[in-house]
Amino acid sequence: MFISLDLETEEPIYTQLKQQIIEGIAKKELKPGEGLPSVRSLAADLGINLHTVNKAYQQLKQEGFIQIHRQKGVVIHPDGVQKADESYYTTLSAKLRPLIAESICRDVSLDEFQKLCLQIYKDFEKRSES
Amino acid sequence: MFISLDLETEEPIYTQLKQQIIEGIAKKELKPGEGLPSVRSLAADLGINLHTVNKAYQQLKQEGFIQIHRQKGVVIHPDGVQKADESYYTTLSAKLRPLIAESICRDVSLDEFQKLCLQIYKDFEKRSES
Repeated sequence: MFISLDLETEEPIYTQLKQQIIEGIAKKELKPGEGLPSVRSLAADLGINLHTVNKAYQQLKQEGFIQIHRQKGVVIHPDGVQKADESYYTTLSAKLRPLIAESICRDVSLDEFQKLCLQIYKDFEKRSES
Repeated sequence: MFISLDLETEEPIYTQLKQQIIEGIAKKELKPGEGLPSVRSLAADLGINLHTVNKAYQQLKQEGFIQIHRQKGVVIHPDGVQKADESYYTTLSAKLRPLIAESICRDVSLDEFQKLCLQIYKDFEKRSES
């Protein structure tokens, strides 16, 4: 899997790394049980700090995307990611609210907003089929 | 308009303040040309730092939600907020991607995702009609 980081944005590096791994799982480029590089080797490959990779991995572990074994190393969670529960929908809704509020202020209709979501969904699915 | 801040979340106070003002505009509780409290008085009312309010107001000004006049004080932009352009859609899309990627990992269908957006849109519109 190819990881590209943007060092110029406000988005912290560990967040970018986390999101790209989550996107990799969504696109099925990263499959359950598949190994990821160790903290040390990923940090060296990307030319970033060990702690940055560690922070991303620890959060991914806590949120159930990966497992970190002393021997086997880092793997995508072999049972798959936990399905959305009520608490996930609450968090998702809280993250969508400000995006929707700003979109309403800027005259984006519900239809246009939903079309954009559809495009992004399709974009992930297309890649997971190819 | 009632502003409630959560001092326990990770979300910075200035971001919360900014988002609530944007939500107020989306719900039409705050109308074009309407005055907002001065930095000093809002900071005192909410019991937060002057700089926090100032940071929120400066960003709202930069993004075209409010105007800050030396004499008239702070007002919701009288011409309304600038409509979504291509650059807004690019930013919105970049913010939606990680939410959609995680939702796909957690087996949230496009239909469920769009229904959630619909609910939030309706929630804002209901309040703007009441």
